[in-house]
Amino acid sequence: MREQLTSIKNQHVKNWKKLATKRGREKFNAYLLDGWHLVEEALKSDIHLTELIGTAEELATHEDIVSRFDQVYEVTPMILKHVMDTVTPQGIAAVAELPDQRFNGQVDLKGAWLMLDRVQDPGNVGTMVRTADAAGFAGVIVSHKSADLFNPKVVRSMQGSQFHLKLYTGDLTKWIQDFKAQKIPVYGTQLNPKAKSFRTVNSGRNFALIMGNEGHGMAEELLAQTTANLYIPMKGEAESLNVAISAGILMFELNQQALNE
Amino acid sequence: MREQLTSIKNQHVKNWKKLATKRGREKFNAYLLDGWHLVEEALKSDIHLTELIGTAEELATHEDIVSRFDQVYEVTPMILKHVMDTVTPQGIAAVAELPDQRFNGQVDLKGAWLMLDRVQDPGNVGTMVRTADAAGFAGVIVSHKSADLFNPKVVRSMQGSQFHLKLYTGDLTKWIQDFKAQKIPVYGTQLNPKAKSFRTVNSGRNFALIMGNEGHGMAEELLAQTTANLYIPMKGEAESLNVAISAGILMFELNQQALNE
Repeated sequence: MREQLTSIKNQHVKNWKKLATKRGREKFNAYLLDGWHLVEEALKSDIHLTELIGTAEELATHEDIVSRFDQVYEVTPMILKHVMDTVTPQGIAAVAELPDQRFNGQVDLKGAWLMLDRVQDPGNVGTMVRTADAAGFAGVIVSHKSADLFNPKVVRSMQGSQFHLKLYTGDLTKWIQDFKAQKIPVYGTQLNPKAKSFRTVNSGRNFALIMGNEGHGMAEELLAQTTANLYIPMKGEAESLNVAISAGILMFELNQQALNE
Repeated sequence: MREQLTSIKNQHVKNWKKLATKRGREKFNAYLLDGWHLVEEALKSDIHLTELIGTAEELATHEDIVSRFDQVYEVTPMILKHVMDTVTPQGIAAVAELPDQRFNGQVDLKGAWLMLDRVQDPGNVGTMVRTADAAGFAGVIVSHKSADLFNPKVVRSMQGSQFHLKLYTGDLTKWIQDFKAQKIPVYGTQLNPKAKSFRTVNSGRNFALIMGNEGHGMAEELLAQTTANLYIPMKGEAESLNVAISAGILMFELNQQALNE
């Protein structure tokens, strides 16, 4: 069914707008994808897309994709600008079903996992998910009080990696216990030269790596639960690295073995 | 001398505002530092600070630092908000002299150098300078058509690393020739699995690494001039890494030898 919408007061438009907030996403169990690239990536995966929203001009460029949607909304550029939390919306968007992010007790913990402890910046969270994907990680687990995984800015930075990885939100203490119960090492990170240099670690194929909050690092109580806490030796006079850069260095070093296969 | 300013129409305020643009920075040969931390870092280095600008409240908190300035301007929070290109200015700012970024024919090319070919995003440029600092690099050279090194957003991301590294802006072709004339290897980077894996490279202590534009990578003509072009092997289905993440992985791997000393 194709419907034309011209007013931002339309109820559909109001509902889409609400997907910019966590509360709205939970209410509708949905989030927005911006642009053809993400729509195509989603269609290749098993993500359920419920609605396609586009300007007449954009919809005309990809008729093959449009035909795969039951619900298509033709809207004005102004409506898209109103709905999307971005300066330059791409003229096309889709409503995707929010995946279940809760631990269900049956997660296969094999492979490399990234955990984020209260990482605040949506760009950092999204970039780390994207990097974890490139580094061949199995999944990412974010703590409560981190930027929400389906926040529009996180979605933009993930660039579609949410379709390639397992993503969970939950209590990291519980996850650490589960990894350790299966004898899988859990590495914390610490801006502390007395911690273990990451270059001396042989993680093996199955491990979890935890990155902490931008300003405060990992919570003390989590640092106390890990197998070991790692440090990136630095020269120069910089006092620290951006958390996403640190994560990139560590993920590509620790998962090297898997990457070389 | 201490002066009180209350109007955004004051000529000083107008001049500071112009420092947000490249043209303004070049005209006044100056750029702005935001917050006590950067002011203190600058005072520790040999950077010349000409003016201190702060609210009465902030100026009262660091009298020792204030006394080191010949020119101090007490301004309203509104003026600082108007002048600084940031959502939450810290109540204190300083005018710093712009360093000479031109190649003067007498640069010591020893150590590790990062070159940026048309990197557009100010946050990426600033983060890479900060990471180069932490990785013990000697300097960073940015091409014309990259984000300007003293753009306020770059300055914010550098977090003071401009005081620890040599920074140049110029024609990369010229710099590549200089490195090669001194038998120093120059490594390009390429999103191409047929390029050389960075893990197989032994760079030694002196080398240059080039990162390319976010969307298009390095210019073909530069790729043709390097000693070798490197690739980061990726697993997973991500199509690429953020340029600053790639730079972090490469800098910490290639300069490992220097970092371990």
